[in-house]
Amino acid sequence: MDTYIAVDIGGTQLRASLYPAGDTKPLAQKRIPTKSKDQTPVDRLLDLLQSIWPAGGSVRGIGLAAPGPTNSRAGIIYAAPNIAGWENLPLARIVQDRFNVPTLLGNDANLAALGEWKFGAGRGYQYVLYITISTGIGGGVIEDGKLLLGYKGLATEIGHITVVPDGPVCGCGLRGHLEAVASGTAIARYVAEQLASGVPSSLAELHAPTARDVSQAAEQGDPLAKAALARAGIFLGHAIADYLHLYNSQVIILGGGVSRSGALLIEPLRAALAERVMSPEYLHGLVITTAALGDDAGLMGALALAQTAG
Amino acid sequence: MDTYIAVDIGGTQLRASLYPAGDTKPLAQKRIPTKSKDQTPVDRLLDLLQSIWPAGGSVRGIGLAAPGPTNSRAGIIYAAPNIAGWENLPLARIVQDRFNVPTLLGNDANLAALGEWKFGAGRGYQYVLYITISTGIGGGVIEDGKLLLGYKGLATEIGHITVVPDGPVCGCGLRGHLEAVASGTAIARYVAEQLASGVPSSLAELHAPTARDVSQAAEQGDPLAKAALARAGIFLGHAIADYLHLYNSQVIILGGGVSRSGALLIEPLRAALAERVMSPEYLHGLVITTAALGDDAGLMGALALAQTAG
Repeated sequence: MDTYIAVDIGGTQLRASLYPAGDTKPLAQKRIPTKSKDQTPVDRLLDLLQSIWPAGGSVRGIGLAAPGPTNSRAGIIYAAPNIAGWENLPLARIVQDRFNVPTLLGNDANLAALGEWKFGAGRGYQYVLYITISTGIGGGVIEDGKLLLGYKGLATEIGHITVVPDGPVCGCGLRGHLEAVASGTAIARYVAEQLASGVPSSLAELHAPTARDVSQAAEQGDPLAKAALARAGIFLGHAIADYLHLYNSQVIILGGGVSRSGALLIEPLRAALAERVMSPEYLHGLVITTAALGDDAGLMGALALAQTAG
Repeated sequence: MDTYIAVDIGGTQLRASLYPAGDTKPLAQKRIPTKSKDQTPVDRLLDLLQSIWPAGGSVRGIGLAAPGPTNSRAGIIYAAPNIAGWENLPLARIVQDRFNVPTLLGNDANLAALGEWKFGAGRGYQYVLYITISTGIGGGVIEDGKLLLGYKGLATEIGHITVVPDGPVCGCGLRGHLEAVASGTAIARYVAEQLASGVPSSLAELHAPTARDVSQAAEQGDPLAKAALARAGIFLGHAIADYLHLYNSQVIILGGGVSRSGALLIEPLRAALAERVMSPEYLHGLVITTAALGDDAGLMGALALAQTAG
């Protein structure tokens, strides 16, 4: 039987799935911690692949979803934020040399976009903007049925455009990016600041409320929590207006934990978006929806990538 | 002889050129005013095409570069800012029905990007960001050897992302867009404000200094004029940093009258860009250059478009 292997590489765990050709139902799935005392993450990845390898069949392609900036054309991870030593790592070649199977690598947020487009909320569309809002903000763009990658595969860092000049420091070290004001981290920070300045809230009882705590409090009507989500939604709406001017997407897919806050995030987002779009044609027929694949989006994107390998 | 016709449609004049297949040297060129007392602009365009039509040969395709937002897939001009009545105008079909020749239409800034890529400063690259800075700011993006258009062809409105929230009013009616702070219009407005508040400058002698006046004064060392160009360059640099994160371009081509200010604009731009890029990989190998085709960029892009028609 012909198969494909997809791997989602995270700072905490490595997940691998084996799929039969032409199917998205896995034959096998396995997950292991990324780090251990006696093995490098690369060796652990190679062992994981070996352990999920089909006994009788052939593997036609391997797809790797990697964190951080990657050169998807060259198969290189420039820097993995949470894996020490993964700098300018030619991981696709390492895997390909070991197993002698075509191996492709991509940025996890780009591949999540690819996964949602091929197998999730983006099916049937040709112009997709996918935004994942969790600890950080990432995403990907499908233009005319093709993942937009740019020259080195560094394109569509959706979280890293400036929305508040000289605003809070972003995960990337620069200031005022969308990620710095609308990610889960930013929502939690905003709430902490408001609590510190004496704004009353049910969240004051918690030691360090997370974005998830904020979502739950907002659902129960807490005014500060609702304001924090609305604030993030407004920043997202403003940024998406810019993205529509730049990409003219047909559908916007919102993924990541923060997007599960629902109407309390998305209604302010829609209102802010409508205010900042320069022509109604950008909104006419536009679909705004939530992601369908949850935590599997990156893995499914790695499968879609693997399927193009051979 | 097989030929192509390209037309650049402006609010002031219509320019048409006839090209032999496989060549960029025109067989004939003609320009007429867009408006007259006794003809509609559409009738004038049809007459212009008729007047440049090759006597013996066949026309394989017609390309139209149109101002304002266009649906390049459907061949519709949504709204031409300077031509009254051109709203939701199916111009490609009108021309095609009249001459029975495949006719394609595109936004003039997108087509200028296409022209610079195919025939000008972008030759040989596959990932191009073209920005034209004149009265307004427009542009286009080549991704993997293809013009990025978006769902309806409304993509890459490069001048219309927010760089100064609640900043000056933009040509599009919204606030704080790149066009509102870095176009020729914005440079002239900034200088007028500074003069009104008493800043000394050689430009104080002029009634209403234009961006061109500012460029000339800057070349002669006028401090206010130099500061005005540097300010526009810094805003451009910040916006281009965002664009690199979004498009990961290989070459940036600066066109339009303001780009001819040279180092006084481009050096501040480069410095601001370097400060705002999240990874050196975006800059490593990046080429920043000026446009090669001048006012012909849109026309040459219309030729490139016509060549894809038949």
